[in-house]
Amino acid sequence: MLIKKLHEIRASDRNVTDKGWESSRLLLAEDGMGFSFHVTTLHAGGEWTFHYRHHVEAVFVLNGKGSVEDLATGERHALSAGTLYALDQHDQHTLRAESELVTVCVFNPPVTGSEIHDESGAYLPAVLAS
Amino acid sequence: MLIKKLHEIRASDRNVTDKGWESSRLLLAEDGMGFSFHVTTLHAGGEWTFHYRHHVEAVFVLNGKGSVEDLATGERHALSAGTLYALDQHDQHTLRAESELVTVCVFNPPVTGSEIHDESGAYLPAVLAS
Repeated sequence: MLIKKLHEIRASDRNVTDKGWESSRLLLAEDGMGFSFHVTTLHAGGEWTFHYRHHVEAVFVLNGKGSVEDLATGERHALSAGTLYALDQHDQHTLRAESELVTVCVFNPPVTGSEIHDESGAYLPAVLAS
Repeated sequence: MLIKKLHEIRASDRNVTDKGWESSRLLLAEDGMGFSFHVTTLHAGGEWTFHYRHHVEAVFVLNGKGSVEDLATGERHALSAGTLYALDQHDQHTLRAESELVTVCVFNPPVTGSEIHDESGAYLPAVLAS
């Protein structure tokens, strides 16, 4: 059994900050669960375009308001506490935070922690990023 | 892209109640994400022993206080908002809710929704439960 505490993760190298967001990786590939589990906070007013070609991801909103736009269809979905979006088709999307958005994110395959966002907003697989 | 809303799931057949707990399955096997994603509320004062022989599970506490006891070691871990436990070894465990516990749970392989808890507190694989 593994025990992970968010406040400890936030003080560790499993806490990552980037342009307007902060992600705390409670579970990574090395934990052997077959998925990774992140608590990610997106700052108010931010807008990000991501395209995870190598992963599927589910994002569950715990707090805040924003939207996610499916760039393939142009459809925009409102986000608030209790809404989940799942990028089951590796969907390229634009995420907008009207207020601070606090989310839980699950990736399959699990993020290793050594990926980088490339110029298209994808995570490269760890083997390519290293 | 899939969009799931907790209040809609709660009014659907993806909402399951059992002895002292309620689970809302936002993502199930049929959603094709490779994991299932549940919001589970455990009522204050409850105690449950579970043993998921066929799944690994991560549980992240959003609200409330309780504990999880690893029955292999006897070790008991306090649970409160921000704590995650992961049953990476299919750990048999006893979960206790001192107050109402609101959690996010992720299962791998994904729960199909047709499993039942057998007498040991396991989910049988769907193929055995059907």
